[in-house]
Amino acid sequence: MKATRIAHLAVATADSRDLLTVLGHLGLAVTHEETVADQGVRVQMVGIGPDQLEILQPEGDGSPISRFLAERGQGLHHLAIEVDDLAAVLAHLQTQGVRLIDARARIGAGGRRIAFLHPASCGGVLVELCEREEPTSVG
Amino acid sequence: MKATRIAHLAVATADSRDLLTVLGHLGLAVTHEETVADQGVRVQMVGIGPDQLEILQPEGDGSPISRFLAERGQGLHHLAIEVDDLAAVLAHLQTQGVRLIDARARIGAGGRRIAFLHPASCGGVLVELCEREEPTSVG
Repeated sequence: MKATRIAHLAVATADSRDLLTVLGHLGLAVTHEETVADQGVRVQMVGIGPDQLEILQPEGDGSPISRFLAERGQGLHHLAIEVDDLAAVLAHLQTQGVRLIDARARIGAGGRRIAFLHPASCGGVLVELCEREEPTSVG
Repeated sequence: MKATRIAHLAVATADSRDLLTVLGHLGLAVTHEETVADQGVRVQMVGIGPDQLEILQPEGDGSPISRFLAERGQGLHHLAIEVDDLAAVLAHLQTQGVRLIDARARIGAGGRRIAFLHPASCGGVLVELCEREEPTSVG
């Protein structure tokens, strides 16, 4: 049941250029980019050594990210923690009364199985759980 | 000049118990705790595999963390990026017009040399730079 690492840290911004400029001065650049259409979000991943920063920009109005920007403004958005068996963790959290946004795993950026916990149960922090990916087998 | 990793991710909360309860369900616990008196903040570090989550609680009124909680509410507070030579990075960022909160390194939690960049230059994100610690020499 133990969490294995921070999978990524996500930032919500209306325009990622300023942040990417500063990261560029630190020798960092976008390593992967995709649109998650059902969430209306453009995702840019920036590798920082072994770690990942996920930059989220809204595509169109009415997406969860546009609502976040309207309510909270730009800044840090969520913390993603990697776990081994997401279904087992979600079942356990539910029995413990932890409030879940996603009671079942769904597919997020990069095709990974994810689920969000509600900030009300996490001291105001939006926490995503990501299932650890199996290493790709050879041959 | 390249950043080497995410040193830690920090959360600001009035009371860390809810978050620590959820983290406990994921097999995680506080691994280090200290008060940084000149910042009026209680710091709890939670190791998540190789990564570090820093939970910040105010000690008394008028501290930067109490002001943050009053203005923004509980949630993610800052992202700390590890760099090799903090003085060189700060000098470079200054020539590039990046707005710095700390123009010179100061001592943060754990006795590390740190400096904060201004969110206005970083797409709304409060970014801390931490100097990489030298491995302790033997003998």
